[in-house]
Amino acid sequence: MLAPDALRALLEEHLAGLSFRPELHGQEASMRYALTGGKRVRGVICLAVAEAAGGSVDEALSAAAALELVHAFSLVHDDLPALDNDAERRGRPSVWAEFGEAAAVLAGDALLAEGLRQALSYPTAALGRELVEATLGMIGGQYLDITGSDVDLAELHRLKTGRLFAASVGLGLWAAGVAESEQASWRAFAEELGLLFQVVDDVLDGDGYAARLGVDGAQALVAEAATRARARLHALDVDTAVLATIINDLAVRTA
Amino acid sequence: MLAPDALRALLEEHLAGLSFRPELHGQEASMRYALTGGKRVRGVICLAVAEAAGGSVDEALSAAAALELVHAFSLVHDDLPALDNDAERRGRPSVWAEFGEAAAVLAGDALLAEGLRQALSYPTAALGRELVEATLGMIGGQYLDITGSDVDLAELHRLKTGRLFAASVGLGLWAAGVAESEQASWRAFAEELGLLFQVVDDVLDGDGYAARLGVDGAQALVAEAATRARARLHALDVDTAVLATIINDLAVRTA
Repeated sequence: MLAPDALRALLEEHLAGLSFRPELHGQEASMRYALTGGKRVRGVICLAVAEAAGGSVDEALSAAAALELVHAFSLVHDDLPALDNDAERRGRPSVWAEFGEAAAVLAGDALLAEGLRQALSYPTAALGRELVEATLGMIGGQYLDITGSDVDLAELHRLKTGRLFAASVGLGLWAAGVAESEQASWRAFAEELGLLFQVVDDVLDGDGYAARLGVDGAQALVAEAATRARARLHALDVDTAVLATIINDLAVRTA
Repeated sequence: MLAPDALRALLEEHLAGLSFRPELHGQEASMRYALTGGKRVRGVICLAVAEAAGGSVDEALSAAAALELVHAFSLVHDDLPALDNDAERRGRPSVWAEFGEAAAVLAGDALLAEGLRQALSYPTAALGRELVEATLGMIGGQYLDITGSDVDLAELHRLKTGRLFAASVGLGLWAAGVAESEQASWRAFAEELGLLFQVVDDVLDGDGYAARLGVDGAQALVAEAATRARARLHALDVDTAVLATIINDLAVRTA
Protein backbone atom coordinates (compact mmCIF):
# COMPACT_ATOMS: atom_id res chain seq x y z
CA MET A 1 0.00 0.00 0.00
CA LEU A 2 1.39 3.37 -0.98
CA ALA A 3 1.29 6.25 1.48
CA PRO A 4 -0.62 9.42 0.54
CA ASP A 5 2.60 11.28 -0.37
CA ALA A 6 3.66 8.52 -2.72
CA LEU A 7 0.22 8.49 -4.34
CA ARG A 8 0.34 12.26 -4.72
CA ALA A 9 3.74 12.05 -6.41
CA LEU A 10 2.47 9.46 -8.88
CA LEU A 11 -0.56 11.60 -9.64
CA GLU A 12 1.55 14.72 -10.17
CA GLU A 13 3.71 12.83 -12.61
CA HIS A 14 0.63 11.53 -14.41
CA LEU A 15 -0.95 14.99 -14.63
CA ALA A 16 2.27 16.52 -15.94
CA GLY A 17 2.37 13.88 -18.65
CA LEU A 18 -1.29 14.16 -19.72
CA SER A 19 -1.62 14.97 -23.38
CA PHE A 20 -4.49 17.24 -24.20
CA ARG A 21 -6.28 17.32 -27.53
CA PRO A 22 -4.23 19.16 -30.19
CA GLU A 23 -7.43 20.95 -31.30
CA LEU A 24 -7.23 22.97 -28.09
CA HIS A 25 -4.25 24.86 -29.51
CA GLY A 26 -3.01 27.65 -27.20
CA GLN A 27 -5.86 27.03 -24.78
CA GLU A 28 -3.72 24.30 -23.27
CA ALA A 29 -1.43 26.81 -21.51
CA SER A 30 -4.22 28.15 -19.31
CA MET A 31 -5.44 24.63 -18.57
CA ARG A 32 -2.00 23.53 -17.39
CA TYR A 33 -1.69 26.71 -15.35
CA ALA A 34 -5.05 25.95 -13.70
CA LEU A 35 -3.93 22.43 -12.89
CA THR A 36 -0.73 23.51 -11.16
CA GLY A 37 -0.32 23.54 -7.41
CA GLY A 38 -3.37 21.80 -6.02
CA LYS A 39 -3.28 19.55 -2.97
CA ARG A 40 -4.74 16.69 -5.04
CA VAL A 41 -6.97 15.64 -2.15
CA ARG A 42 -9.64 14.19 -4.44
CA GLY A 43 -7.25 12.37 -6.73
CA VAL A 44 -5.28 10.88 -3.84
CA ILE A 45 -8.49 9.64 -2.20
CA CYS A 46 -9.47 8.00 -5.47
CA LEU A 47 -6.10 6.24 -5.76
CA ALA A 48 -6.08 5.14 -2.11
CA VAL A 49 -9.64 3.79 -2.38
CA ALA A 50 -8.80 1.92 -5.58
CA GLU A 51 -5.76 0.30 -4.01
CA ALA A 52 -7.55 -0.54 -0.73
CA ALA A 53 -10.42 -2.04 -2.71
CA GLY A 54 -8.08 -4.41 -4.50
CA GLY A 55 -7.37 -2.48 -7.69
CA SER A 56 -4.10 -1.11 -8.96
CA VAL A 57 -3.00 2.48 -8.56
CA ASP A 58 -1.94 2.57 -12.22
CA GLU A 59 -5.41 1.71 -13.43
CA ALA A 60 -6.94 4.44 -11.27
CA LEU A 61 -4.66 7.25 -12.45
CA SER A 62 -6.96 8.37 -15.26
CA ALA A 63 -9.88 8.47 -12.82
CA ALA A 64 -7.82 10.52 -10.36
CA ALA A 65 -6.79 12.89 -13.14
CA ALA A 66 -10.44 13.23 -14.19
CA LEU A 67 -11.34 14.35 -10.66
CA GLU A 68 -8.52 16.90 -10.53
CA LEU A 69 -9.48 18.26 -13.96
CA VAL A 70 -13.10 18.72 -12.92
CA HIS A 71 -12.03 20.28 -9.63
CA ALA A 72 -9.79 22.69 -11.55
CA PHE A 73 -12.70 23.55 -13.88
CA SER A 74 -14.83 24.51 -10.90
CA LEU A 75 -12.13 26.74 -9.41
CA VAL A 76 -11.42 28.52 -12.70
CA HIS A 77 -15.09 29.41 -13.21
CA ASP A 78 -15.74 30.20 -9.53
CA ASP A 79 -12.85 32.69 -9.54
CA LEU A 80 -14.28 34.69 -12.49
CA PRO A 81 -15.11 38.35 -11.82
CA ALA A 82 -18.82 37.69 -12.31
CA LEU A 83 -18.76 34.97 -9.63
CA ASP A 84 -16.33 35.14 -6.70
CA ASN A 85 -14.08 37.75 -8.33
CA ASP A 86 -10.89 36.20 -6.99
CA ALA A 87 -7.83 37.59 -8.72
CA GLU A 88 -5.57 35.28 -6.73
CA ARG A 89 -5.48 31.53 -6.26
CA ARG A 90 -2.75 29.50 -4.56
CA GLY A 91 -0.57 32.58 -4.11
CA ARG A 92 -0.51 33.70 -7.74
CA PRO A 93 -2.88 35.29 -10.24
CA SER A 94 -6.01 33.24 -10.88
CA VAL A 95 -6.56 32.03 -14.43
CA TRP A 96 -8.67 35.00 -15.54
CA ALA A 97 -6.21 37.44 -13.97
CA GLU A 98 -3.36 35.78 -15.85
CA PHE A 99 -4.96 34.90 -19.21
CA GLY A 100 -8.04 37.14 -19.39
CA GLU A 101 -11.69 36.35 -18.80
CA ALA A 102 -12.46 34.90 -22.21
CA ALA A 103 -9.62 32.38 -22.02
CA ALA A 104 -10.65 31.53 -18.45
CA VAL A 105 -14.22 30.74 -19.46
CA LEU A 106 -12.94 28.47 -22.22
CA ALA A 107 -10.24 26.96 -19.99
CA GLY A 108 -12.89 25.93 -17.49
CA ASP A 109 -15.05 24.45 -20.22
CA ALA A 110 -12.10 22.53 -21.62
CA LEU A 111 -11.01 21.25 -18.20
CA LEU A 112 -14.51 19.90 -17.59
CA ALA A 113 -14.69 18.24 -21.00
CA GLU A 114 -11.17 16.85 -20.66
CA GLY A 115 -11.99 15.51 -17.20
CA LEU A 116 -14.98 13.67 -18.59
CA ARG A 117 -12.88 12.39 -21.48
CA GLN A 118 -10.44 10.89 -18.97
CA ALA A 119 -13.29 9.33 -17.00
CA LEU A 120 -14.64 7.86 -20.25
CA SER A 121 -11.31 6.22 -21.07
CA TYR A 122 -12.48 3.16 -19.08
CA PRO A 123 -14.43 0.33 -20.71
CA THR A 124 -17.39 1.00 -18.41
CA ALA A 125 -19.34 4.24 -18.65
CA ALA A 126 -19.92 4.15 -14.88
CA LEU A 127 -17.05 6.55 -14.10
CA GLY A 128 -18.22 9.11 -16.66
CA ARG A 129 -21.79 8.84 -15.41
CA GLU A 130 -20.82 9.35 -11.78
CA LEU A 131 -18.52 12.26 -12.59
CA VAL A 132 -21.12 14.06 -14.67
CA GLU A 133 -23.74 13.65 -11.94
CA ALA A 134 -21.30 14.99 -9.35
CA THR A 135 -20.53 17.92 -11.62
CA LEU A 136 -24.21 18.82 -11.90
CA GLY A 137 -24.44 18.72 -8.11
CA MET A 138 -21.40 21.00 -7.78
CA ILE A 139 -22.87 23.50 -10.21
CA GLY A 140 -26.12 23.46 -8.25
CA GLY A 141 -24.15 24.16 -5.08
CA GLN A 142 -22.31 27.03 -6.69
CA TYR A 143 -25.62 28.43 -7.90
CA LEU A 144 -26.95 28.37 -4.32
CA ASP A 145 -23.74 30.03 -3.18
CA ILE A 146 -23.98 32.99 -5.55
CA THR A 147 -27.72 33.55 -5.36
CA GLY A 148 -28.96 32.53 -1.97
CA SER A 149 -28.73 34.62 1.16
CA ASP A 150 -31.01 32.27 3.02
CA VAL A 151 -29.45 28.97 2.00
CA ASP A 152 -29.28 25.68 3.84
CA LEU A 153 -25.53 25.46 4.51
CA ALA A 154 -25.50 21.68 4.79
CA GLU A 155 -27.25 21.35 1.42
CA LEU A 156 -24.92 23.88 -0.18
CA HIS A 157 -21.80 22.04 0.98
CA ARG A 158 -23.22 18.61 0.31
CA LEU A 159 -23.46 19.77 -3.30
CA LYS A 160 -20.52 22.09 -3.74
CA THR A 161 -17.91 19.96 -1.98
CA GLY A 162 -19.55 16.72 -0.99
CA ARG A 163 -20.57 15.53 -4.42
CA LEU A 164 -17.04 15.55 -5.85
CA PHE A 165 -15.68 13.94 -2.67
CA ALA A 166 -18.24 11.18 -3.02
CA ALA A 167 -17.24 10.79 -6.67
CA SER A 168 -13.59 10.56 -5.63
CA VAL A 169 -14.43 7.44 -3.68
CA GLY A 170 -16.87 6.23 -6.33
CA LEU A 171 -14.45 6.55 -9.23
CA GLY A 172 -11.79 4.72 -7.20
CA LEU A 173 -14.25 1.88 -6.67
CA TRP A 174 -15.25 1.67 -10.33
CA ALA A 175 -11.61 1.83 -11.42
CA ALA A 176 -10.89 -1.08 -9.08
CA GLY A 177 -13.81 -3.04 -10.51
CA VAL A 178 -15.87 -3.07 -7.29
CA ALA A 179 -19.47 -4.04 -8.08
CA GLU A 180 -22.20 -1.57 -7.23
CA SER A 181 -23.69 -4.01 -4.70
CA GLU A 182 -20.40 -3.86 -2.72
CA GLN A 183 -20.12 -0.09 -2.60
CA ALA A 184 -22.53 0.99 0.15
CA SER A 185 -20.09 1.10 3.10
CA TRP A 186 -17.51 2.87 0.99
CA ARG A 187 -20.05 5.50 0.02
CA ALA A 188 -21.07 6.08 3.63
CA PHE A 189 -17.37 6.67 4.32
CA ALA A 190 -17.23 9.16 1.43
CA GLU A 191 -20.09 11.18 2.92
CA GLU A 192 -18.25 11.67 6.22
CA LEU A 193 -15.02 12.49 4.43
CA GLY A 194 -16.66 15.26 2.43
CA LEU A 195 -18.21 16.77 5.54
CA LEU A 196 -14.89 16.55 7.40
CA PHE A 197 -13.07 18.32 4.59
CA GLN A 198 -15.63 21.09 4.32
CA VAL A 199 -15.85 21.88 8.03
CA VAL A 200 -12.05 22.08 8.30
CA ASP A 201 -12.10 24.38 5.26
CA ASP A 202 -14.60 26.63 7.00
CA VAL A 203 -12.53 26.70 10.20
CA LEU A 204 -9.48 27.75 8.17
CA ASP A 205 -11.49 30.41 6.30
CA GLY A 206 -13.53 31.52 9.32
CA ASP A 207 -16.82 31.18 7.46
CA GLY A 208 -19.56 28.62 6.80
CA TYR A 209 -19.77 26.08 9.62
CA ALA A 210 -17.22 28.00 11.72
CA ALA A 211 -19.33 31.15 11.47
CA ARG A 212 -22.53 29.32 12.37
CA LEU A 213 -21.25 26.98 15.07
CA GLY A 214 -18.22 28.91 16.34
CA VAL A 215 -14.73 27.43 16.00
CA ASP A 216 -15.20 25.06 18.93
CA GLY A 217 -18.50 23.82 17.62
CA ALA A 218 -17.01 23.31 14.19
CA GLN A 219 -13.99 21.48 15.64
CA ALA A 220 -16.35 19.18 17.51
CA LEU A 221 -18.13 18.46 14.23
CA VAL A 222 -14.76 17.65 12.61
CA ALA A 223 -14.00 15.18 15.38
CA GLU A 224 -17.41 13.52 15.05
CA ALA A 225 -17.14 13.23 11.28
CA ALA A 226 -13.62 11.77 11.60
CA THR A 227 -14.85 9.24 14.15
CA ARG A 228 -17.72 8.19 11.95
CA ALA A 229 -15.45 7.99 8.89
CA ARG A 230 -13.05 5.71 10.82
CA ALA A 231 -15.96 3.53 11.89
CA ARG A 232 -17.01 3.18 8.26
CA LEU A 233 -13.50 2.11 7.34
CA HIS A 234 -13.41 -0.47 10.15
CA ALA A 235 -16.59 -1.99 8.78
CA LEU A 236 -14.77 -2.73 5.51
CA ASP A 237 -12.96 -6.02 5.45
CA VAL A 238 -9.82 -4.68 3.76
CA ASP A 239 -6.63 -2.84 4.70
CA THR A 240 -7.68 0.80 4.99
CA ALA A 241 -4.61 2.09 6.85
CA VAL A 242 -3.77 4.59 4.12
CA LEU A 243 -7.30 5.96 4.15
CA ALA A 244 -7.15 6.27 7.94
CA THR A 245 -4.02 8.38 7.48
CA ILE A 246 -5.87 10.54 4.98
CA ILE A 247 -8.67 11.11 7.52
CA ASN A 248 -6.14 12.16 10.12
CA ASP A 249 -4.33 14.46 7.71
CA LEU A 250 -7.58 16.11 6.64
CA ALA A 251 -8.70 16.61 10.23
CA VAL A 252 -5.56 18.48 11.27
CA ARG A 253 -4.61 20.26 8.06
CA THR A 254 -3.75 23.94 8.37
CA ALA A 255 -3.91 24.98 4.70
CA MET B 1 -39.60 7.74 -42.42
CA LEU B 2 -40.53 10.98 -40.68
CA ALA B 3 -39.95 14.29 -42.45
CA PRO B 4 -37.64 16.87 -40.83
CA ASP B 5 -40.56 18.90 -39.48
CA ALA B 6 -42.05 15.85 -37.79
CA LEU B 7 -38.66 14.97 -36.29
CA ARG B 8 -38.27 18.54 -35.06
CA ALA B 9 -41.71 18.44 -33.41
CA LEU B 10 -40.84 15.19 -31.60
CA LEU B 11 -37.55 16.67 -30.44
CA GLU B 12 -39.22 19.86 -29.18
CA GLU B 13 -41.65 17.77 -27.19
CA HIS B 14 -38.80 15.68 -25.79
CA LEU B 15 -36.77 18.75 -24.82
CA ALA B 16 -39.76 20.37 -23.15
CA GLY B 17 -40.29 17.22 -21.10
CA LEU B 18 -36.63 16.76 -20.05
CA SER B 19 -36.27 16.66 -16.32
CA PHE B 20 -33.11 18.25 -15.02
CA ARG B 21 -31.37 17.33 -11.80
CA PRO B 22 -33.19 18.79 -8.76
CA GLU B 23 -29.79 19.82 -7.33
CA LEU B 24 -29.65 22.50 -9.99
CA HIS B 25 -32.35 24.43 -8.13
CA GLY B 26 -33.17 27.80 -9.73
CA GLN B 27 -30.39 27.36 -12.26
CA GLU B 28 -32.85 25.38 -14.33
CA ALA B 29 -34.74 28.51 -15.45
CA SER B 30 -31.74 29.92 -17.32
CA MET B 31 -31.03 26.51 -18.86
CA ARG B 32 -34.58 26.20 -20.21
CA TYR B 33 -34.39 29.77 -21.47
CA ALA B 34 -31.15 28.95 -23.30
CA LEU B 35 -32.74 25.88 -24.88
CA THR B 36 -35.73 27.77 -26.28
CA GLY B 37 -36.08 28.72 -29.91
CA GLY B 38 -33.26 26.92 -31.71
CA LYS B 39 -33.61 25.46 -35.18
CA ARG B 40 -32.64 22.01 -33.85
CA VAL B 41 -30.52 21.36 -36.94
CA ARG B 42 -28.12 19.05 -35.06
CA GLY B 43 -30.80 17.12 -33.20
CA VAL B 44 -32.89 16.60 -36.33
CA ILE B 45 -29.85 15.34 -38.26
CA CYS B 46 -29.18 12.89 -35.44
CA LEU B 47 -32.77 11.59 -35.53
CA ALA B 48 -32.87 11.36 -39.32
CA VAL B 49 -29.56 9.49 -39.42
CA ALA B 50 -30.71 7.10 -36.71
CA GLU B 51 -33.91 6.30 -38.58
CA ALA B 52 -32.21 6.00 -41.97
CA ALA B 53 -29.61 3.69 -40.43
CA GLY B 54 -32.30 1.33 -39.18
CA GLY B 55 -32.76 2.57 -35.63
CA SER B 56 -35.84 4.06 -34.02
CA VAL B 57 -36.41 7.76 -33.59
CA ASP B 58 -37.51 7.19 -30.00
CA GLU B 59 -34.22 5.59 -29.05
CA ALA B 60 -32.29 8.49 -30.56
CA LEU B 61 -34.16 11.26 -28.74
CA SER B 62 -31.76 11.38 -25.79
CA ALA B 63 -28.83 11.61 -28.19
CA ALA B 64 -30.54 14.42 -30.09
CA ALA B 65 -31.26 16.23 -26.83
CA ALA B 66 -27.62 15.81 -25.79
CA LEU B 67 -26.51 17.56 -28.98
CA GLU B 68 -28.93 20.43 -28.49
CA LEU B 69 -27.85 20.85 -24.86
CA VAL B 70 -24.18 21.01 -25.83
CA HIS B 71 -24.96 23.41 -28.66
CA ALA B 72 -26.88 25.61 -26.21
CA PHE B 73 -23.91 25.49 -23.80
CA SER B 74 -21.61 26.80 -26.52
CA LEU B 75 -23.95 29.67 -27.42
CA VAL B 76 -24.44 30.74 -23.79
CA HIS B 77 -20.70 30.96 -23.17
CA ASP B 78 -19.89 32.47 -26.58
CA ASP B 79 -22.40 35.27 -25.96
CA LEU B 80 -20.75 36.33 -22.66
CA PRO B 81 -19.40 39.90 -22.48
CA ALA B 82 -15.82 38.61 -22.22
CA LEU B 83 -16.23 36.61 -25.43
CA ASP B 84 -18.54 37.79 -28.24
CA ASN B 85 -20.44 40.24 -26.02
CA ASP B 86 -23.80 39.51 -27.62
CA ALA B 87 -26.68 40.89 -25.56
CA GLU B 88 -29.20 39.44 -27.98
CA ARG B 89 -29.80 35.95 -29.30
CA ARG B 90 -32.75 34.76 -31.36
CA GLY B 91 -34.48 38.13 -31.07
CA ARG B 92 -34.44 38.40 -27.29
CA PRO B 93 -31.91 39.04 -24.52
CA SER B 94 -29.12 36.47 -24.41
CA VAL B 95 -28.80 34.41 -21.23
CA TRP B 96 -26.31 36.73 -19.52
CA ALA B 97 -28.37 39.78 -20.46
CA GLU B 98 -31.47 38.17 -18.96
CA PHE B 99 -30.05 36.35 -15.91
CA GLY B 100 -26.70 38.02 -15.27
CA GLU B 101 -23.18 36.88 -16.09
CA ALA B 102 -22.69 34.59 -13.11
CA ALA B 103 -25.85 32.61 -13.82
CA ALA B 104 -24.89 32.46 -17.51
CA VAL B 105 -21.48 30.95 -16.76
CA LEU B 106 -23.12 28.32 -14.57
CA ALA B 107 -25.98 27.75 -17.03
CA GLY B 108 -23.45 26.96 -19.75
CA ASP B 109 -21.57 24.61 -17.45
CA ALA B 110 -24.78 22.85 -16.48
CA LEU B 111 -25.98 22.55 -20.08
CA LEU B 112 -22.69 20.90 -21.03
CA ALA B 113 -22.83 18.49 -18.09
CA GLU B 114 -26.50 17.72 -18.68
CA GLY B 115 -25.82 17.10 -22.36
CA LEU B 116 -23.14 14.59 -21.48
CA ARG B 117 -25.44 13.01 -18.93
CA GLN B 118 -28.02 12.47 -21.67
CA ALA B 119 -25.40 11.01 -23.99
CA LEU B 120 -24.32 8.66 -21.18
CA SER B 121 -27.86 7.36 -20.69
CA TYR B 122 -27.13 4.71 -23.33
CA PRO B 123 -25.61 1.34 -22.42
CA THR B 124 -22.55 2.08 -24.56
CA ALA B 125 -20.15 4.87 -23.61
CA ALA B 126 -19.54 5.56 -27.32
CA LEU B 127 -22.03 8.45 -27.49
CA GLY B 128 -20.55 10.18 -24.46
CA ARG B 129 -17.03 9.69 -25.78
CA GLU B 130 -17.85 11.14 -29.18
CA LEU B 131 -19.73 14.09 -27.70
CA VAL B 132 -16.94 14.99 -25.30
CA GLU B 133 -14.35 14.84 -28.11
CA ALA B 134 -16.54 17.05 -30.27
CA THR B 135 -16.92 19.48 -27.39
CA LEU B 136 -13.17 19.75 -26.98
CA GLY B 137 -12.89 20.49 -30.70
CA MET B 138 -15.57 23.19 -30.45
CA ILE B 139 -13.80 24.83 -27.54
CA GLY B 140 -10.55 24.79 -29.50
CA GLY B 141 -12.35 26.46 -32.40
CA GLN B 142 -13.80 29.11 -30.16
CA TYR B 143 -10.33 29.72 -28.73
CA LEU B 144 -8.95 30.29 -32.24
CA ASP B 145 -11.87 32.60 -32.93
CA ILE B 146 -11.27 34.88 -29.95
CA THR B 147 -7.48 34.93 -30.06
CA GLY B 148 -6.33 34.57 -33.63
CA SER B 149 -6.21 37.31 -36.19
CA ASP B 150 -4.28 35.13 -38.60
CA VAL B 151 -6.29 31.96 -38.31
CA ASP B 152 -6.90 29.21 -40.84
CA LEU B 153 -10.63 29.68 -41.48
CA ALA B 154 -11.19 26.10 -42.60
CA GLU B 155 -9.58 24.77 -39.42
CA LEU B 156 -11.54 27.18 -37.24
CA HIS B 157 -14.87 26.13 -38.74
CA ARG B 158 -13.98 22.48 -38.89
CA LEU B 159 -13.63 22.72 -35.12
CA LYS B 160 -16.23 25.27 -34.12
CA THR B 161 -19.09 24.00 -36.28
CA GLY B 162 -17.91 20.87 -38.01
CA ARG B 163 -17.12 18.80 -34.95
CA LEU B 164 -20.62 18.99 -33.50
CA PHE B 165 -22.15 18.35 -36.93
CA ALA B 166 -20.02 15.25 -37.26
CA ALA B 167 -21.11 14.19 -33.78
CA SER B 168 -24.75 14.72 -34.79
CA VAL B 169 -24.32 12.03 -37.41
CA GLY B 170 -22.12 9.93 -35.13
CA LEU B 171 -24.53 9.92 -32.19
CA GLY B 172 -27.38 9.00 -34.54
CA LEU B 173 -25.34 6.01 -35.75
CA TRP B 174 -24.43 4.87 -32.25
CA ALA B 175 -28.03 5.28 -31.08
CA ALA B 176 -29.12 3.10 -34.00
CA GLY B 177 -26.53 0.49 -33.10
CA VAL B 178 -24.43 0.89 -36.26
CA ALA B 179 -21.03 -0.74 -35.77
CA GLU B 180 -17.96 1.46 -36.10
CA SER B 181 -16.80 -0.53 -39.12
CA GLU B 182 -19.98 0.50 -40.97
CA GLN B 183 -19.74 4.21 -40.23
CA ALA B 184 -17.15 5.54 -42.72
CA SER B 185 -19.50 6.66 -45.53
CA TRP B 186 -21.83 8.25 -43.03
CA ARG B 187 -18.97 10.20 -41.53
CA ALA B 188 -17.82 11.43 -44.93
CA PHE B 189 -21.38 12.69 -45.41
CA ALA B 190 -21.21 14.45 -42.04
CA GLU B 191 -18.08 16.33 -43.07
CA GLU B 192 -19.77 17.80 -46.16
CA LEU B 193 -22.89 18.65 -44.18
CA GLY B 194 -20.89 20.63 -41.61
CA LEU B 195 -19.10 22.58 -44.34
CA LEU B 196 -22.38 23.25 -46.15
CA PHE B 197 -23.98 24.58 -42.97
CA GLN B 198 -21.05 26.83 -42.15
CA VAL B 199 -20.67 28.39 -45.58
CA VAL B 200 -24.41 29.19 -45.73
CA ASP B 201 -24.07 30.70 -42.28
CA ASP B 202 -21.24 32.91 -43.48
CA VAL B 203 -23.22 33.99 -46.55
CA LEU B 204 -26.13 34.98 -44.29
CA ASP B 205 -23.81 36.83 -41.90
CA GLY B 206 -21.59 38.30 -44.63
CA ASP B 207 -18.41 37.08 -42.96
CA GLY B 208 -16.09 34.07 -42.93
CA TYR B 209 -16.16 32.24 -46.26
CA ALA B 210 -18.39 34.92 -47.81
CA ALA B 211 -15.87 37.61 -46.91
CA ARG B 212 -12.94 35.57 -48.24
CA LEU B 213 -14.51 34.12 -51.39
CA GLY B 214 -17.23 36.67 -52.15
CA VAL B 215 -20.89 35.69 -52.08
CA ASP B 216 -20.71 34.00 -55.49
CA GLY B 217 -17.64 32.03 -54.54
CA ALA B 218 -19.25 30.97 -51.27
CA GLN B 219 -22.47 29.95 -53.05
CA ALA B 220 -20.43 27.84 -55.42
CA LEU B 221 -18.81 26.15 -52.43
CA VAL B 222 -22.28 25.50 -50.98
CA ALA B 223 -23.35 23.84 -54.22
CA GLU B 224 -20.21 21.70 -54.31
CA ALA B 225 -20.57 20.59 -50.71
CA ALA B 226 -24.26 19.76 -51.29
CA THR B 227 -23.37 17.72 -54.37
CA ARG B 228 -20.70 15.79 -52.50
CA ALA B 229 -23.03 15.25 -49.54
CA ARG B 230 -25.70 13.82 -51.88
CA ALA B 231 -23.13 11.57 -53.48
CA ARG B 232 -22.18 10.26 -50.04
CA LEU B 233 -25.83 9.51 -49.33
CA HIS B 234 -26.25 7.69 -52.65
CA ALA B 235 -23.34 5.47 -51.71
CA LEU B 236 -25.28 4.26 -48.66
CA ASP B 237 -27.53 1.33 -49.31
CA VAL B 238 -30.49 2.69 -47.31
CA ASP B 239 -33.36 5.14 -47.75
CA THR B 240 -31.80 8.56 -47.24
CA ALA B 241 -34.62 10.66 -48.72
CA VAL B 242 -35.14 12.57 -45.47
CA LEU B 243 -31.45 13.39 -45.24
CA ALA B 244 -31.50 14.57 -48.87
CA THR B 245 -34.31 16.94 -47.88
CA ILE B 246 -32.20 18.20 -45.00
CA ILE B 247 -29.30 18.92 -47.37
CA ASN B 248 -31.64 20.90 -49.66
CA ASP B 249 -33.13 22.81 -46.74
CA LEU B 250 -29.70 23.70 -45.36
CA ALA B 251 -28.46 24.83 -48.79
CA VAL B 252 -31.31 27.31 -49.33
CA ARG B 253 -32.02 28.45 -45.79
CA THR B 254 -32.35 32.19 -45.23
CA ALA B 255 -32.13 32.35 -41.43
